[in-house]
Amino acid sequence: MTTYKLLLLPGDGIGPEVMAQVERVVGALRELGIASFETETDLVGGAAIDVHGKPLADETLARADAADAILLGAVGGPKWNGVAYEIRPEAGLLRLRKDLGLFANLRPAICYPALADASALKRDLVEGLDIMIVRELTGGVYFGEPKEITVLEDGSKRAIDTQVYTTGEIERIAHVAFDLARKRSGRVASAEKHNVMKSGVLWKEVVTKVHAEHYTDVELEHVLADNCAMQLVRRPKQFDVLVTDNLFGDILSDAAAMLTGSLGMLPSASLGAVDARGTRKALYEPVHGSAPDIAGQDLANPLAMIGSLAMCLRYSFGLGEAADLLDGAITDALAGGARTRDIVGPGAKVVGTAGMGEAVITAL
Amino acid sequence: MTTYKLLLLPGDGIGPEVMAQVERVVGALRELGIASFETETDLVGGAAIDVHGKPLADETLARADAADAILLGAVGGPKWNGVAYEIRPEAGLLRLRKDLGLFANLRPAICYPALADASALKRDLVEGLDIMIVRELTGGVYFGEPKEITVLEDGSKRAIDTQVYTTGEIERIAHVAFDLARKRSGRVASAEKHNVMKSGVLWKEVVTKVHAEHYTDVELEHVLADNCAMQLVRRPKQFDVLVTDNLFGDILSDAAAMLTGSLGMLPSASLGAVDARGTRKALYEPVHGSAPDIAGQDLANPLAMIGSLAMCLRYSFGLGEAADLLDGAITDALAGGARTRDIVGPGAKVVGTAGMGEAVITAL
Ligand SMILES: CC(C)[C@H](C(=O)O)[C@@H](O)C(=O)O
Ligand SMILES: CC(C)[C@H](C(=O)O)[C@@H](O)C(=O)O
Repeated sequence: MTTYKLLLLPGDGIGPEVMAQVERVVGALRELGIASFETETDLVGGAAIDVHGKPLADETLARADAADAILLGAVGGPKWNGVAYEIRPEAGLLRLRKDLGLFANLRPAICYPALADASALKRDLVEGLDIMIVRELTGGVYFGEPKEITVLEDGSKRAIDTQVYTTGEIERIAHVAFDLARKRSGRVASAEKHNVMKSGVLWKEVVTKVHAEHYTDVELEHVLADNCAMQLVRRPKQFDVLVTDNLFGDILSDAAAMLTGSLGMLPSASLGAVDARGTRKALYEPVHGSAPDIAGQDLANPLAMIGSLAMCLRYSFGLGEAADLLDGAITDALAGGARTRDIVGPGAKVVGTAGMGEAVITAL
Repeated sequence: MTTYKLLLLPGDGIGPEVMAQVERVVGALRELGIASFETETDLVGGAAIDVHGKPLADETLARADAADAILLGAVGGPKWNGVAYEIRPEAGLLRLRKDLGLFANLRPAICYPALADASALKRDLVEGLDIMIVRELTGGVYFGEPKEITVLEDGSKRAIDTQVYTTGEIERIAHVAFDLARKRSGRVASAEKHNVMKSGVLWKEVVTKVHAEHYTDVELEHVLADNCAMQLVRRPKQFDVLVTDNLFGDILSDAAAMLTGSLGMLPSASLGAVDARGTRKALYEPVHGSAPDIAGQDLANPLAMIGSLAMCLRYSFGLGEAADLLDGAITDALAGGARTRDIVGPGAKVVGTAGMGEAVITAL
């Protein structure tokens, strides 16, 4: 059995608690002979600021670069609100994404049958919902230069952010989306604002070209980002794979996640390009944030973090069966009635973070 | 009775149909001695492209500048998909906003009692919903330079959009939001991405300062734009006035509009600065688009357009009572059971565009 090197970056807030459950699951997978991991733990975000004065130490980045995959909890919290823009907790996460070239962010928005009633939307609109959002993660307004605040002569200020996209950046994310769609329903929706943004014009043009040249078997639809936000609320099941840029992806994926009623349940994968050896850099993290208000109280839902490990098995190690097993254990734990506070419903038994981890391991 | 000069720009798709109902209402207001208008009609968007080769003729802009207020239907449609970026239908609308300095876009998201069941959200989450979104409309990524696509040496392309905000631009929109909040619940939420964008850093800083210096009686909350999209779905009634930039405002206001289940019902106002004579430039338009698929079939809901006239009475002419009367007539028409196709529910009588206009005039 190959032993994979995992770097664990628990981060801030509820990050360490949910990561602790992943460590237990990793142990169980090893004991059951399903998969073998060597884990190393390091600091990121606010936790790293407290120790190193910056949110991602160079040694940590080097470790991340050397690992077979990275699992990250969450970063940020009010404690670091006062720190400068360049060394805020989020900057550590952004540097990881950028420096490791993790350009493809996969964010499934799945409505778990047991949780359909937890959604803000009417049940029939979300039952069976299964969208895969493919968000470009290393370009756009997140990283474009200039990005600065200048003080003008009269003492007032002027802030600039720059959204940049190149043909190559759009091509590679389009390929990821179309390839995923082939294994799913064969439908892709691409969201941009070509009526206002030049990057939207190029986005639409390149996605159209990649489609015409390589994926005519897949159905492609273009949708304006504002209309997309509307349609996600109105009739979310019309979407299967949804590909979009870094900033729109940030907002649309959060809206989509909330639709499912399972925010504490949703994992994500951030993938780099496949290299000559057939491997790729990858980071897996929950869609939810660091939730400082409930940190340290055994209240957090660890399933998004555990689900991120399942995505890791699938996308980094080709262990599709092991991933199915783990996803199945999550479904079974829910079917058995285990609920953390965020997804509680009538007749369910409320468990803590550790209790939910236990329920998954038992189901394994 | 003062006679106000209104410029009507019906535009494309369902624009002309819904504007026709406004003309009838204008006539009724005149006959009833409530308010007197002189109207002029001109082309914008695709309709203007067809005649002038561009979406806003200079004469039209001059007329808009001279009018006391502008009512606009909607622009765009598949017919003009092929035209160049610079002369697309939307460019006419953007030029009107920019050249007339209409920096404050007010977008109420109201859930009409009669329509609570039309929402995708569960009834208790939207019943009584009344949010005022204040969107900055003449800055940000919509107008920042450079905004261009360049062809690189290898034939691939690079697209750039620039988001720019200055202290002054943020200050004036913050004042609009806080002033509105004072007349409402006294609460403002300000949405940005200060964790990723420098314009978000400045936005948060300036809004905080304006608040501290002038509006300590108003409650201010800062929310990240992605989280805001989530919260709008999860628990929309937590918001009262929501102030945000041009691009986030575009997306968040569309999501908020959809929550109400009344997309065909929602008006908007785009206001300029108050000048020395106490007047301000203003344009009023429905939140919905040109809906080319149902154009010309007497299916469109004219209430957003009629509601835009009500906002015009209120914000441009200080005719609060007349505005209340017209808003009341809209509510009465709905209470009387009149429904266009978009808002139809059990037991309602389906009427066409003209039928709904008639119902409002009767209620007046
Ligand atoms: C923490 C923040 C920088 C990040 C982002 O904006 O990308 C987060 O919202 C996310 O979606 O992963
Ligand atoms: C038509 C388009 C340019 C416009 C915008 O993006 O502002 C529209 O979506 C709106 O919200 O008024």
